[in-house]
Amino acid sequence: MTRVPVDLAGAPYDILVAPGAFGQIAEHLRGFARAGRLLGVTDEGVAAHWLEPLREQLSDAGIVLEAFIVPQGEQAKSWNWLEQLTDWLLDRGVERGDHILALGGGVVGDLTGFAAAIAKRGCGFVQIPTTLLAQVDSSVGGKTAINTGAGKNLVGAFHQPGFVLIDPELLATLPQRQLAAGWAEVVKYGLIDDPEFFAWCEANRADFFAGDLAVRSEAIERSVRSKARIVAADEREMTGTRALLNLGHTFGHALEAETGFSDRLFHGEGVACGMALAFRYSVRREKCPPEDAERAAALLSASGLPVTLAQAGVHCDGTRLVDHMRHDKKMAGGTLPFLLARGIGKTWLAKDVELTDVTAFLDEERAF
Amino acid sequence: MTRVPVDLAGAPYDILVAPGAFGQIAEHLRGFARAGRLLGVTDEGVAAHWLEPLREQLSDAGIVLEAFIVPQGEQAKSWNWLEQLTDWLLDRGVERGDHILALGGGVVGDLTGFAAAIAKRGCGFVQIPTTLLAQVDSSVGGKTAINTGAGKNLVGAFHQPGFVLIDPELLATLPQRQLAAGWAEVVKYGLIDDPEFFAWCEANRADFFAGDLAVRSEAIERSVRSKARIVAADEREMTGTRALLNLGHTFGHALEAETGFSDRLFHGEGVACGMALAFRYSVRREKCPPEDAERAAALLSASGLPVTLAQAGVHCDGTRLVDHMRHDKKMAGGTLPFLLARGIGKTWLAKDVELTDVTAFLDEERAF
Repeated sequence: MTRVPVDLAGAPYDILVAPGAFGQIAEHLRGFARAGRLLGVTDEGVAAHWLEPLREQLSDAGIVLEAFIVPQGEQAKSWNWLEQLTDWLLDRGVERGDHILALGGGVVGDLTGFAAAIAKRGCGFVQIPTTLLAQVDSSVGGKTAINTGAGKNLVGAFHQPGFVLIDPELLATLPQRQLAAGWAEVVKYGLIDDPEFFAWCEANRADFFAGDLAVRSEAIERSVRSKARIVAADEREMTGTRALLNLGHTFGHALEAETGFSDRLFHGEGVACGMALAFRYSVRREKCPPEDAERAAALLSASGLPVTLAQAGVHCDGTRLVDHMRHDKKMAGGTLPFLLARGIGKTWLAKDVELTDVTAFLDEERAF
Repeated sequence: MTRVPVDLAGAPYDILVAPGAFGQIAEHLRGFARAGRLLGVTDEGVAAHWLEPLREQLSDAGIVLEAFIVPQGEQAKSWNWLEQLTDWLLDRGVERGDHILALGGGVVGDLTGFAAAIAKRGCGFVQIPTTLLAQVDSSVGGKTAINTGAGKNLVGAFHQPGFVLIDPELLATLPQRQLAAGWAEVVKYGLIDDPEFFAWCEANRADFFAGDLAVRSEAIERSVRSKARIVAADEREMTGTRALLNLGHTFGHALEAETGFSDRLFHGEGVACGMALAFRYSVRREKCPPEDAERAAALLSASGLPVTLAQAGVHCDGTRLVDHMRHDKKMAGGTLPFLLARGIGKTWLAKDVELTDVTAFLDEERAF
């Protein structure tokens, strides 16, 4: 069991990485109930596995769990579900000091966190992430959001949870493809600024996928520590430090947009391919040794993740992909900063990237 | 022309109180346009008076104003209008560094500020308040919100504007009843902690209502300074200092709820009657000299504001009014803090008020 403090001005909180913690969940959540009641949010898929065990444990501890269940998938990150959830919380008399429990993956966490951010101008929330992606990425850092017609995550708030409980044992029921998608974000932390951790990922990949709990715990803990460190340095994306977390995301976002933000390409798969593209684009700009780009792609590929446009199921031209990028939240004054690499563990935010050059690069990538 | 700095950690901004400033509006707004464009929000009533003059002045300065117009009144502070406005901003490619202009009263400011707070997780906004209430109260302090089925302002964000421009000359077209409703909030600053300002209000009331621009400017400036000072001490209502601004609001909110949050009782009228009630309740609790309560009520009454339940058009019993209070955002652990007074300019937050005692007091008030 490891406690990772997230050191944010005004709102510090702890992330607990603890295999088996779900088995003593009442102990961990007792302090967040009020008058014997806890309000929780989950989705239909997670509810089928974990809601009743959770409800029973809380009930044994004298805590009634009232649950709001959303449909599975991105469709729940909508205006409609935000309104329904927020009104549900208000109807139940939620108070600012209350903590709403988010049990699920990134969708449940993003929606619940956003509803908590705006109900009474800000209630608390706690997260029990149930997917690897949510455990290593979306449950850390306080970004909450819904999707709109204009794009993904375009409406939301920065709102930090009061507590995050990560039980790696919950991953036992996670499909392999979702596990791989989360693993892309684990590898990302090595690629950003930690070559030693990247080498650790290479050495431990097989054990991780085989279900080794110690390896899974270490991968999660190191990822969470990396993200917590980066977020603490730049909570609201003001200085550029936090932008490091977007490695592979600008390319990846365009791939996701092109595949309709659907199950055709999971977010983590888009990020994996996006990171491979960012490294190869860095080689093209003569910033990165080709062997580093190959090594990055090799680990992702060995993990069952796409590293070329074709593998990602994308066959359009560069112009079309770059058009998707123009809606990015990070567009400023009509330009878009890009995360590029000088090598594994050596990334930086380039502000002089010409979108025409990116277009030409993506057109060349169609040959692979 | 006076510049009042609002000293908030991380987001300081200026409020400019300047009679006639609307006549040089392009000068003030130039820095907030991007690529010759400004996105603005107003309501149908304000648009009829001020939108074309604003558009022309900006146009002469080479700035195109794109305007989103909402209906007049509280109905615009809804999920529906929030979604429409936010999607409109995103469709127009709003960026985080942009500033959205809110031209109007409290409704326009609250809705625009909230949309700005959540579009791309936070864009900027600037305010040109056109009612006295918005000039002295809602445009200062960063509270933004919409209403829901559960109550008023129950969903929102703390989000500070980048700049507020107050032109007292805009009040020339404001109906007398709305002017009086805003005046209630002016008097409030004296009652809270500034007996000298309360005496100034007594001495200058007639000139204020007669349209004396110097008096109006001074009333606004002193109100804004008071609010800025209190908000800076407690931006997010954590310490209790900001609660002072709620003088009369707990009683007032119940009166507004009972009259359906309608034109039957304006917010400022509810606050006026609420303040008179808070002083008389303080007398009942033997905390406040009766003559101070009488003096407070006398000034409000002379300003055409209601100071009794009957004058506010409320005829129900105390139980019903106290039931309305139970939905207050400030309810914590089932109790509700009340602003009480030891005299004019001597208010404090009482946490030991029994709602049963408030009920009995309100039942007695029905006789007046």
